[in-house]
Amino acid sequence: MTATESLFTKLTAGYDESLSRGGVDGGRIAQRLSELSMIGASPEGGVTRPGYSPEEKHAKQVVKSWMEQAGLQVFEDGAGNVIGRLEGMESGNAIMSGSHVDSVPNGGDFDGPLGVIAALEVAEAWKETGYHPRKAYEVVIFSDEEGTRFGAGLTGSHAMTGQLTEEETNLKVDKEGKSFETVIEEYGSSLPAVWRAKRNMGEIELFVELHIEQGKLLEKNGCSVGAVKGIAGPVWMNVTFEGEAGHAGNTPMDDRRDSMVAAGHFIHTVSSLPRQFSETSVATIGKLNVFPNGLNVIPQKVELTVDIRDIHEDPRDALVQAIIEAAEQSGVDHNVGVTCRKTLAVQPMLVNEELLSDLKESISEFGMEPMELMSGAGHDAMVIGREVPAAMLFVQSKKGISHNPEEWTDLSDCVIGVQVLKNFIEKQMERS
Amino acid sequence: MTATESLFTKLTAGYDESLSRGGVDGGRIAQRLSELSMIGASPEGGVTRPGYSPEEKHAKQVVKSWMEQAGLQVFEDGAGNVIGRLEGMESGNAIMSGSHVDSVPNGGDFDGPLGVIAALEVAEAWKETGYHPRKAYEVVIFSDEEGTRFGAGLTGSHAMTGQLTEEETNLKVDKEGKSFETVIEEYGSSLPAVWRAKRNMGEIELFVELHIEQGKLLEKNGCSVGAVKGIAGPVWMNVTFEGEAGHAGNTPMDDRRDSMVAAGHFIHTVSSLPRQFSETSVATIGKLNVFPNGLNVIPQKVELTVDIRDIHEDPRDALVQAIIEAAEQSGVDHNVGVTCRKTLAVQPMLVNEELLSDLKESISEFGMEPMELMSGAGHDAMVIGREVPAAMLFVQSKKGISHNPEEWTDLSDCVIGVQVLKNFIEKQMERS
Repeated sequence: MTATESLFTKLTAGYDESLSRGGVDGGRIAQRLSELSMIGASPEGGVTRPGYSPEEKHAKQVVKSWMEQAGLQVFEDGAGNVIGRLEGMESGNAIMSGSHVDSVPNGGDFDGPLGVIAALEVAEAWKETGYHPRKAYEVVIFSDEEGTRFGAGLTGSHAMTGQLTEEETNLKVDKEGKSFETVIEEYGSSLPAVWRAKRNMGEIELFVELHIEQGKLLEKNGCSVGAVKGIAGPVWMNVTFEGEAGHAGNTPMDDRRDSMVAAGHFIHTVSSLPRQFSETSVATIGKLNVFPNGLNVIPQKVELTVDIRDIHEDPRDALVQAIIEAAEQSGVDHNVGVTCRKTLAVQPMLVNEELLSDLKESISEFGMEPMELMSGAGHDAMVIGREVPAAMLFVQSKKGISHNPEEWTDLSDCVIGVQVLKNFIEKQMERS
Repeated sequence: MTATESLFTKLTAGYDESLSRGGVDGGRIAQRLSELSMIGASPEGGVTRPGYSPEEKHAKQVVKSWMEQAGLQVFEDGAGNVIGRLEGMESGNAIMSGSHVDSVPNGGDFDGPLGVIAALEVAEAWKETGYHPRKAYEVVIFSDEEGTRFGAGLTGSHAMTGQLTEEETNLKVDKEGKSFETVIEEYGSSLPAVWRAKRNMGEIELFVELHIEQGKLLEKNGCSVGAVKGIAGPVWMNVTFEGEAGHAGNTPMDDRRDSMVAAGHFIHTVSSLPRQFSETSVATIGKLNVFPNGLNVIPQKVELTVDIRDIHEDPRDALVQAIIEAAEQSGVDHNVGVTCRKTLAVQPMLVNEELLSDLKESISEFGMEPMELMSGAGHDAMVIGREVPAAMLFVQSKKGISHNPEEWTDLSDCVIGVQVLKNFIEKQMERS
């Protein structure tokens, strides 16, 4: 229990107790984050709970028992999505909130679990204060969000909304060579049950996800929480520069077809392009491999990836085009061949104006500046948001560190997030 | 025997028989290149004869038997250098020529063996025509020239000239973890015998090495052979750019410390620097590794190597300084840390004016344009040239391909090389 005590102790040190009010209990939130942090704890100090692993399943079981204690009716669909439902005073569509409990290898304690625990804490608070919501409320855990196991995540939300295709599941093979079918059977479900997880999303009025920012803007601006105005859709590209290998000593400078020089020129050009298209667009060359990668050999080939994102689709697509042109120009300038291949293109999601305005109002009512943010990373809210109105609330991450044991959010910021989430959900409960 | 026949057949097809004159025999040269090509033949079509391997030893034994047939007195020193000596009509210093028979893994058939066979062919020609040189003549095979086994080559020529240090031999460990001492004992010698290989270089009047160009200039200029005016000395540097990792989606462009962008800027700048310092200088970024090298992660660190060469030391060192400044400037511009570390600095060798002029004269006398070249790669001639006057004759390489099974030199060019080498050596024999 040392690890639990230690995260609990770390979280509660310096916590502002006055934030625990209206039935929201900071101590309970800290205890629950601590308990989940022990499941799949890695020797390097992080957590490893891959999608559909025994560790993810264990974490879901623990949350299910909390859901039951909170008076929710718990069920799990064939894709492993866990839903804890509280019926409303009136019949009709439900409001849904939640996130995921899987993690990247040696990941942090907040990415995912905080959103699930926060959604559940809203129900806990209502139980404590005797508040009965007008509409039904669902706390959800989506399966396999991260995507490090199969190379593509958001599996649970895709399955629930019918966006998971047979082609996609056929392609999913984990790093040990296990097919998705084998993995899902070992998990205790089956492929046919995964298809049956597709739900009538018309039963859901809206979805809201609380998540850590995984960026530094809230910290920089001294904000505990922020309202997400859109989730950027990435375009991924593989770019290859192919020149001619040669001896580093025996090939004069003007007789070279050096793929590294072409790549260097391209990388430098790309870094200045995004701001020409939009304030919210970004482009990153994160991965680059050189062939043959020998100290005294002019590189024959450089392969690299470009990750381009924006919450606005038009400037993003214009940026993609400009990046392709920059690659081609660099190829011409340095006399090397160039190929560009798109490997992914995801539609950005803009949060609906009314929900964004309500969320900012909830932040303001808490006495805080309602900062607007974009999410650069994909989330289950992006997937659900294609079917039903969805909103997202970000909570400050220390130094923006994520997917790492050093991921950290102060308990005070966690609790402020829960209070804002609760206020927002209660507002939606009252809307007709 | 298929492989031998096949290389012999390939070499002799289209050979201009009229080049075989004055005792020089193109057929014999082709036969010998073919025989050596079978020793250590790799499944991929090249040859693998690492320094001090059974394959290198086998190749030396074959050449020794040829030396004996040619009437040379053969001995091998403690470093495995093989010397076949022909006494001169007069006593005094010897003229030496030769190269090496070791190869890189899956290397070509000409890099090394051609220089040994050519030096031997000069003695064969004399035997056939009854020419008796005034001075002694030595045909040499240097051990372990390539350096792929221990990461640093030129071992035989270092040992002969006393440039091999105990520090160096202590550091030499091959890829299987064998120490140099173990390797040399398995070869049939010993460390003390290696030290005893140091020779009184005063006994050598001059050294001349024939070698394939491993570049494309002779082919481009339609020349069979060229006179090397200098051997470039490399400076090797490791440059590291260290910024901050971050999520590719959640970190705005103006809030990044992207080591890849700094590296890209640097690579592009470096490509235009050499021509500002000298016509013969080159700089190559051949090896580059990115950390963590993830598609959606802003690179925290980029490590790369720079190989900088020139036959003139002053402009080379000024270029090195400019490259260090470019790295530092790129670090400042992109707000990332930079470290530059030199890992090697070899003095260039300029061929002495008189020998260069004699060699060009021998080329002219053969009715060819006496093209001057620099050698970008290091050779045993560079090591020997620190102690005694040394010259180098390059023979055309098809497409400049080397260290590869596709390495190729037409037999006509090989024989022209031998004829020029013979003429040059005979000139030196007559000099007082």
